[in-house]
Amino acid sequence: MDVFEAISTRRAVKKFDPNHNLSSDEIKNLMEHVILSPTSYNQQNWRFVYVTDQDVKDKISVAARGQAQPKDGSVVIVLCGDLTAWKTDTLRYWKNHPKEKQDIVKAALERKYTTDPKAIRDEAIRSCGMAAQTIMLAARDMGLDSCPMVGFDYDKLAKIINLPETHLIVMMVVVGKKIEDAPPRGGQLPLSDVAFENSF
Amino acid sequence: MDVFEAISTRRAVKKFDPNHNLSSDEIKNLMEHVILSPTSYNQQNWRFVYVTDQDVKDKISVAARGQAQPKDGSVVIVLCGDLTAWKTDTLRYWKNHPKEKQDIVKAALERKYTTDPKAIRDEAIRSCGMAAQTIMLAARDMGLDSCPMVGFDYDKLAKIINLPETHLIVMMVVVGKKIEDAPPRGGQLPLSDVAFENSF
Repeated sequence: MDVFEAISTRRAVKKFDPNHNLSSDEIKNLMEHVILSPTSYNQQNWRFVYVTDQDVKDKISVAARGQAQPKDGSVVIVLCGDLTAWKTDTLRYWKNHPKEKQDIVKAALERKYTTDPKAIRDEAIRSCGMAAQTIMLAARDMGLDSCPMVGFDYDKLAKIINLPETHLIVMMVVVGKKIEDAPPRGGQLPLSDVAFENSF
Repeated sequence: MDVFEAISTRRAVKKFDPNHNLSSDEIKNLMEHVILSPTSYNQQNWRFVYVTDQDVKDKISVAARGQAQPKDGSVVIVLCGDLTAWKTDTLRYWKNHPKEKQDIVKAALERKYTTDPKAIRDEAIRSCGMAAQTIMLAARDMGLDSCPMVGFDYDKLAKIINLPETHLIVMMVVVGKKIEDAPPRGGQLPLSDVAFENSF
């Protein structure tokens, strides 16, 4: 599917076919593309838990205050940030480039994040946000739909997915086969209210 | 262009053709699609400044520590979050739905954000991250390339775009015609290092 069409037809679907599954190959192909999403300094600070096990999906629905999308969707992708990515074996992020470039990036990462936990957290959310939209648009290309979710009990979900202490859950995206269209868009703000030429 | 191809061929391009421009219609069409990106509770908390004026682009390059992408790209889109969107005339976000739903959303927004400035900030970054990837994939569909940027002097850029005090700059995306390919990918982490089935 053409990108513009995918953007236009992406909606937050609430009712998925509980009998629809994705094959391991389909999930692998999706995720291999998701990890081509950009990250600052190529630090690849996202971590993804893709949940297909029905028991785990059921538990996630409970943690999401009873919402049906996780249990009925084909796969629940929990997008997390690894808050230590900026300092963990950083040369690997640029291993295909000259050593000089690797060292420059390592120094830049240290300069930016060593004393700034807020910047680390921001970077995790920014990276996961970009990857989330990759998932949602890719889903359209696969003939599927999606639902981004932030309304869940953080501690419960962290326990379900065995979240490492150094990681932050940013959001979930459920991907599946819709059995009911999303309702009409709620109320789109006019472009002139949200986009400004050259300056506010 | 097919979504998967757009994802695979999106790279952070550094050298853009300074003589390439986008028409107002092209920019409008791009932005009309960008604002279909999802936001929590449809609060549409992103604000975009799209810069085409060469003087302003030159100033942004200076604020971006001399990097050439803003001055050479066809349009620089500065993605900002409006940190008051959650409480400003919120019924408009669901105006096409019954009053009952509008009231539920208004109450939910108040419950979530009234006493939690960190949640407001997180939401701005998450919304802008998703919209940024929409821009980058849409650019591919237009035969163009992009460069996401976070390395800039925040205060200088805020002054250039006349940022309201209630807003946060999240990132920039430059869109333009490349005149040089991006170098090979720096070093992709294997999928097994960043994606986990059912739990960490």
